[in-house]
This record gives sequence, C-alpha cells and structure tokens, in this order.
Amino acid sequence: MKEKINNLTIKMLAGQLGLSVSTVSKAISDSHEISASTKQRVNDLVQKLNYVPNPYASSLRTRNSKTIGVVIPEVADSFFAQAINGIESVAQEKGYHVLIYLSHENFEKEKKILKDFESGRVDGVLISVAKETTQHCHIDALMDKAVPIIFFDRVMDEVTTAKIITNDCESARLATEYLIKKGCNRILFLSFSHTLSITCKRLAGYKKALLDNHLKYADNNILTFSNDAKKDYLLLQKKLKSASKDVGILASVEKLALPIYQACEDLQLSIPEDVQVISFSNSDSAAFLHPPLTTITQPAFEIGKTAASLLVKTLERKNFELPMEEIVIPSDLIIRKSTLP
Amino acid sequence: MKEKINNLTIKMLAGQLGLSVSTVSKAISDSHEISASTKQRVNDLVQKLNYVPNPYASSLRTRNSKTIGVVIPEVADSFFAQAINGIESVAQEKGYHVLIYLSHENFEKEKKILKDFESGRVDGVLISVAKETTQHCHIDALMDKAVPIIFFDRVMDEVTTAKIITNDCESARLATEYLIKKGCNRILFLSFSHTLSITCKRLAGYKKALLDNHLKYADNNILTFSNDAKKDYLLLQKKLKSASKDVGILASVEKLALPIYQACEDLQLSIPEDVQVISFSNSDSAAFLHPPLTTITQPAFEIGKTAASLLVKTLERKNFELPMEEIVIPSDLIIRKSTLP
Repeated sequence: MKEKINNLTIKMLAGQLGLSVSTVSKAISDSHEISASTKQRVNDLVQKLNYVPNPYASSLRTRNSKTIGVVIPEVADSFFAQAINGIESVAQEKGYHVLIYLSHENFEKEKKILKDFESGRVDGVLISVAKETTQHCHIDALMDKAVPIIFFDRVMDEVTTAKIITNDCESARLATEYLIKKGCNRILFLSFSHTLSITCKRLAGYKKALLDNHLKYADNNILTFSNDAKKDYLLLQKKLKSASKDVGILASVEKLALPIYQACEDLQLSIPEDVQVISFSNSDSAAFLHPPLTTITQPAFEIGKTAASLLVKTLERKNFELPMEEIVIPSDLIIRKSTLP
Repeated sequence: MKEKINNLTIKMLAGQLGLSVSTVSKAISDSHEISASTKQRVNDLVQKLNYVPNPYASSLRTRNSKTIGVVIPEVADSFFAQAINGIESVAQEKGYHVLIYLSHENFEKEKKILKDFESGRVDGVLISVAKETTQHCHIDALMDKAVPIIFFDRVMDEVTTAKIITNDCESARLATEYLIKKGCNRILFLSFSHTLSITCKRLAGYKKALLDNHLKYADNNILTFSNDAKKDYLLLQKKLKSASKDVGILASVEKLALPIYQACEDLQLSIPEDVQVISFSNSDSAAFLHPPLTTITQPAFEIGKTAASLLVKTLERKNFELPMEEIVIPSDLIIRKSTLP
C-alpha cells in the first residue's frame, strides 16, 4: 500500500490537449494571459481525469503551499482549541490549509518542527512557544529563510515580529487585587514555568497588586508546577495544609485549576470560605464546577483570528508591512462563586 | 518575506564533493551501499551548509513524506485531545510528523482535506468522520490512490479497513440500565446526529436496555442537537420542563453534558434528585462539576495509540496485513454523584 499513484502530470494534460505545458499551467492557475475558451478546455479535462495538482511539485515552482503551520504546546486546553477556531475562520475564508503541530512543551520537538518548515512545507507560521523554550535560534533560522512567523499567546520578547497577546500583567494584577479586596492576606501564585514571558508577566501583575496594597511578596507563595502531576499535587496539598486562614490562589493557567479543587476536597477545605480561587481559564466547564470558578477569560478566538489575518496579509499583499510589535486584546475577569461575594 | 530560500540541492552538494547525485542521495539516507568515509564527507558538508532536504522534492522521489494526517471533526473535545496524544506517542517513537486537520463537522471540508491528500502530502491517514458525512466516495478515492486509511472513534461501517473503536452499543446499554435501576422511568437520549455510526450504536444500546427492562421506546425521548447552541438549549429546556419526575438523561457526547447542567440550574431542577445524568465524556472536569458527573469514559489515548501503531506498521512492513476489521477497546462507566447512590 506504500506506492501512491499520481502520475498524471501537467505534461500529460498538455499532450492530450495539444497545448504547451506553460499554457496548461497558466490556465489552471487562471492567468489573464489565457483565453476563456482555452481555460474551459483545460478545466474540462482536469475534471474528467480527476487531476489533483501535486502540492510538492507545485511548491517547488511557486514556493507557495497555501498552508499555515500552527505550532502550539498542547491541544488539551480550551484557550488553544478556541484560538485554532479563530485561525481556521480566516484560513477557510482565504483558502489556506491549517496544519497543527504540537511541541508537547518540549524545546527539541519545537526545534525539529521549525527545522522541517525551513524546506518550504508551509508559507508562514503562527507559534505559541513551549514552556521549555528559552532560546530563539530556531526561530531566527526560519526567519532567515524568509518564512514569516507571528507569535500568539506565548511569545518571546527577544524576537522582533508581530505578537498577538492579551493583557497578561494587568489582568493578573486585577485578579490579585480582587482577592485582596475579598480579604485574602496570603495569596499563592501557581506557575508552571520560570522562563515563559507570559508567566513572568502574570507574575509581575501579581507582584504589583501586592505592592500597591502594601502586602509582602514571599517566594514561598509561588508554586511552580513541573510536568509530574502527582508530585505537583502533593506540593500543592502540602502548601494548602500549612496555610492559615484567608488564603487566595491565582492559577496562571487553566490546567492548574482542577488540582486546586481536588486538593481542597481532599483536605476538606471549603471554596470560597477557606480558600478563594481565580484561574486563567477559557473552559466552558468553569461555570459548572463546584463551586463555579472565577476566571480570567482570554479572547482566544480573537487572538487566533488576528494572528492569522496578519499572516495572510503578509503572505498576499506585496506592500503590507507586518507590524513588528505587540497587539494586545484584553481579557475579562468573570466573577463566579470560587471567590467571596 | 514571501521568497523562501532553499536553493541548495543534492546536485550542488554532489558538485562540491565531486560525487554523483545518486551517491550523495544514498549517503544522506544512510544506504548500506555507501562507505562510512563517504557518508562522513557528505554529512560534514550537509551540516556545514545547514542543508535541509526539501520534503516536496524528496516525496516526489520516494513518495514518503514521513507524515501522518489526522482528520478530526473538532479539537475542543477531551476525547480527541487524548486520542491525539496517543497518536503522537507512536509517531514520536517512529519518527513521523503528525498533521492535524479539522473538518469542523463539515462534509465538504472533509472532502477537500482528503482530496488534498491524494497528491501525496501524507503517507497515511487516521480519520474520525464529520457528523455530516454519510457518503464515502472521498475515502474510496483516497484508498484507490493506495493511501492507507484507518478509522478511529467515528467510523463508516460501509468502508472496509481497520477501525479502532470502543464498545459504543454495550456501554450505552450499561449506562441506560444503570439509570433504570436507579429509578428513572423516563430516559432522554441526547444525540447530535441521525446518521453517524457511533451515535446509531449508542442509540441501539439505549434501546436494548429499554427493551430488556420492559420500558417503552418513544421517539420524543430522543433529542437530536443541531449546531445551533441556543436553539438546542431551548429544546432541551422545553423537554425537561414538560418531563414528570424520575427523569434520566444519557448524553451521547461530551459537549452535551454542560447544557444539561445549565438547563437544570435555570429550571431549578436538582441533579440527581430530579434528573439523573450520565454522559459520554473524557473531560477531567467531570469529577469537579456540581454535582460530579457520572461518565462513560472512553480509552481515548489507547484508541489513538492503536490506530497509529497499525498505520505505521502498514507503512513500514512489507508483509504486514492491515486487519480489515473493528478493534474494540472497552469504555468505563464511572459512577459519580449525578446519579443516585
């Protein structure tokens, strides 16, 4: 089953029609140089023979695969699922394929994916970097090959290109301030990376709120999760056990929210009476958790849509200048019952 | 930024090294015909010049893109997220790329994706069909081009190939029987397709449980959701309003579970006292909903892993015969508090 059959070439079409290869090729790509009647003849035969242009051969000629590569760390996250829908809404309209590549938070895997792109597999790239990614040589290398790259959500500050993000620092500051106003005098910040720009900005917002409200920042209130769910859970449980009353938690990413609920259940701590919780989350289930979760909800669809629109403009418009800056679309703080009324 | 640079070809490498193109090509693919010292010379130059083999040119020669195409209806579903992780676990080990394509439940989009595959973009395909898909001409066409296709989860009974599924009928029967035993004398079945094989099997299991327990099957207990969330919600709400006591609901897919919780909240119906709920769901949040949701949890990772293993064997082993049958991996009924104790 390994041998794929696609021997029908433009040359064969040309032979059958008594036309030159160049005429057939131009007719297929709807060139203004070719008459309507010739285009009709070519298209009739194309349909009759069920001819599919070979994308590989075609991209060798035109360097245009009509494909957007989307590189994300994982797929089991509502933010990314919604951002992909935003990207696809543009791609569908503009006739692009979307290929989704997962880095699984692994720098080596992300490097391999981008290396593969160097050969022209995609026209442009939208990327949200892995948590392990601290170097940008692989991104520079791809840019050197003139493949446009736009960051979304998880950006690298050191790389100059368009970056579509939300107001990470400000929304974390607002959420922290909300917890303070609701009586929390100790607030844990749940992180999952020491290096990701997005996490650092959210941490900065948390710190700013503490400072503004004359609360002391303490390193031991910052819990950085690894990829070892069991170990992470025990760490969280231990921290909650030793915490006094009026504790708040700000989780910097969706997947850290459920372990908090689990730990509180296991320790018989009540949310929000004993522990108040806010999480960055785009999950529809937030409203139906026990109790419903107060969230910072990101404009995921809009972020994906904006990133894809800019990429397509860059690919299609000769005189379009990609804005080499951050485009910020603000998040919403949605108050539910995991914080006090 | 549109012009990509990849003019370095095997021919140029051969010229620089004073070797034939065929020798260089064989050295790069680590052929036993080439001496270790020649391979070393070739690889040194490849590294020095940062040469990336062009996948398009390479696949024209070998028809081997080392790429698996995964076609799924949507990404915002825990089942598919976990199945993709299973697929990637095999692909990573065996050196394959995984490209994820979304059909968005749309038959025309699915057709386009498969048409695109005919040209050799991927070596093989794993597919879970769109809810709109009732014809299999697009799948037949791809198989005619000798591209191996394996179904997972959402299969088409009419197509002969390997199909990795769970015990859809039996697990729906067990769940329905559980609701009957817990006192439900009217059980709603929430569907989202009249035609999908997977939904028909789940409905058959529901019907069998009713029959086994001498309960009457009624068409007006079957609610088929469209893609219009608002309309669907009003339909569900109306049905629940008019239902008497001791109602049970079996939701045939994860995303139908949260609207049930919403409707019960809005109608001030209590789960499980007024309405007992079971849903097919792989979502981690099920355990933390209010109340925790009793689920039929599918072996999503295993299904993805099994499908990918079979595909890679088909691609790599000359004498491997793809089993043209269903491979069934059973689901678990996980009892939580949305059903009575």
